[in-house]
Amino acid sequence: MSTTPAATRAAKRAFNFNAGPAALPLPVLERMREELLDYRGTGMSVMEMSHRSAEYEAINAGAEQNLRKLLAIPDDYAVIFVQGGGSMQFTMAPMNLGLPGKPIDVLHTGTWTAKAIGELKKGILHNIAASTEAEKFARLPRPEEIKLSADASYTHLCTNNTIEGTQWHSVPHSVAPIVADMSSDIASRPIDVSKYGLIFAGAQKNLGPSGVTVVIVRKDLAERADKNLPTVLQYRTHIKEKSLYNTPPTMAVYILGLVTEWIAAEGGIAGIQKRNEAKAKLLYDALDNSGGYYHCPVEKASRSLMNVVFRVGGGDEAVEKEFGKQATAAGLIGTPGHRSVGGMRISLYNAVGIDAVEALTGFMKEFRRGRG
Amino acid sequence: MSTTPAATRAAKRAFNFNAGPAALPLPVLERMREELLDYRGTGMSVMEMSHRSAEYEAINAGAEQNLRKLLAIPDDYAVIFVQGGGSMQFTMAPMNLGLPGKPIDVLHTGTWTAKAIGELKKGILHNIAASTEAEKFARLPRPEEIKLSADASYTHLCTNNTIEGTQWHSVPHSVAPIVADMSSDIASRPIDVSKYGLIFAGAQKNLGPSGVTVVIVRKDLAERADKNLPTVLQYRTHIKEKSLYNTPPTMAVYILGLVTEWIAAEGGIAGIQKRNEAKAKLLYDALDNSGGYYHCPVEKASRSLMNVVFRVGGGDEAVEKEFGKQATAAGLIGTPGHRSVGGMRISLYNAVGIDAVEALTGFMKEFRRGRG
Repeated sequence: MSTTPAATRAAKRAFNFNAGPAALPLPVLERMREELLDYRGTGMSVMEMSHRSAEYEAINAGAEQNLRKLLAIPDDYAVIFVQGGGSMQFTMAPMNLGLPGKPIDVLHTGTWTAKAIGELKKGILHNIAASTEAEKFARLPRPEEIKLSADASYTHLCTNNTIEGTQWHSVPHSVAPIVADMSSDIASRPIDVSKYGLIFAGAQKNLGPSGVTVVIVRKDLAERADKNLPTVLQYRTHIKEKSLYNTPPTMAVYILGLVTEWIAAEGGIAGIQKRNEAKAKLLYDALDNSGGYYHCPVEKASRSLMNVVFRVGGGDEAVEKEFGKQATAAGLIGTPGHRSVGGMRISLYNAVGIDAVEALTGFMKEFRRGRG
Repeated sequence: MSTTPAATRAAKRAFNFNAGPAALPLPVLERMREELLDYRGTGMSVMEMSHRSAEYEAINAGAEQNLRKLLAIPDDYAVIFVQGGGSMQFTMAPMNLGLPGKPIDVLHTGTWTAKAIGELKKGILHNIAASTEAEKFARLPRPEEIKLSADASYTHLCTNNTIEGTQWHSVPHSVAPIVADMSSDIASRPIDVSKYGLIFAGAQKNLGPSGVTVVIVRKDLAERADKNLPTVLQYRTHIKEKSLYNTPPTMAVYILGLVTEWIAAEGGIAGIQKRNEAKAKLLYDALDNSGGYYHCPVEKASRSLMNVVFRVGGGDEAVEKEFGKQATAAGLIGTPGHRSVGGMRISLYNAVGIDAVEALTGFMKEFRRGRG
């Protein structure tokens, strides 16, 4: 495949700030395109291969190994690829890790913990150990506000709140294992996996396309589950079968493998973090130095490096609508905030380049000038 | 995109008889490749789009409409796209459609109904209404052998048994709604949807890649479910949200849409059926006219048009191993049978061309000559 057509196509690519599914690295898409009709001499696409073939088993094992290396995942943790996204994990986590008579503690920080709580309300013992709902989730709970149970099954939290634009910058103290919904910031910064009991994340923000969910679980915790649970809903099933119990979403796992290769080539998680910090700083500085025209409602210490939320022109909805419209016309896609909260939201996942953020901040300056 | 490079690549394509994931139509892969970096002027891949965008909503609705039209699905049936494959449906179907005190009848015809039964054994009232296990599933139950319960919640069956090479050629009589695992023959022949209560199928055989599961369910039956079930495991959730309750496997749904467009262009289900019948006839004739060198163990009336199983040289495992090896070397991929039953298995799904079957039968003649 010659370089010119790829370059021509690349020139047509939008600056993509979608919240998920989201931007993928261009080299990953190019590699996919190259291999789409004939994966490395097999005469077929990855999608056409048996998931029991040596080729696919290598893809599956490679994706796991890449993740293990990037995130320094200890050997006593299993890494599995499952289906159903965070919504399925809101059911699987309590089903597998909940202990009889021992509540599940939840640190309630927004829409996604609300979803998790919604499932627990269906008859599962739980305790809201902290909540910043009264402040519209514009900050995370402070350590002294967290009231954990003495005998919790586990503590549930969401490391990055996509809709509210907040992110935990340190792991709160918990004696019980922490179950972390890391859907929107996994692989965006180094983490100490040993501080968690279970981590889950849909791939569609920082790791690949939608359709595959990464679960990292301490093996002993996966053994808590009643063996009479539906087979496909037990973590141990997928651990035992190395994510090949049933037909996996092969294409999505393959792309996840390519994305993890790309991350490694970009300097690993440390390199990605550096870039993510630079991107977020550029945008937050633009907001904070706009004389109030752009306003981020999130407390500084709680701000997310992944999803930057802000209001325009004092939160004037007509102006914000216009901002989104003009941004789209300028090739800046996905700037409107979630429909439940309004305003704007810029997602700065791994595959979003600093050039995209520069284009955005340039546009913001122009937009403000036109209104000033 | 010029024609020459595509043609060059096409020439390298293997003849793919994999049982699933399986061959995809070449025009579908070519279209995917063309749109991979820039879907119809959006400046991004389908995988990079928000599932709430107008573009993706059109893809999602289009895939549903194509299926409705191809399979003539009545309006009182919902069509939804979910995750987890047949394995998840073995749990979701009884969870949603089982009625207290009313057993689930199962027509036991092989490995996949055994999996369904395995889940029912976890405390769900059920009845094996027929089984051909004593005959190694080499035929389907005859009408007089089926003993249905008077008050069943539903009757479960598998329309095509991928591993055993059998297929129901007419729908057995059942007063209770029929829940059909149609994973390996959906969209391969016309069906009367109104004879079923629920149809499910992983896409990875006749409709697309793995990672998306089609569920066609009579809307009133979906209302049987307890509203306290996990939200993501209720059919009604996905019906209400038009398959957009949570982030769908967007790429897989997009490809399913392309495959259904391709089926329509090939003469619809009637055109596909004609071709499938011709492919199967060619292969079964080659088996039956081989003087016993190749032998299909399945009773003629129960033979599958999708998966043709046979033994070589009187079932000599060394010869069969050699057959698979030489076939692979000749570019005929995926001929060995399932590891649980041995022998050979040729899958003839929609995207497998008659040219592939001709190449195979030619190879079979040569192989036999070399051994004769």
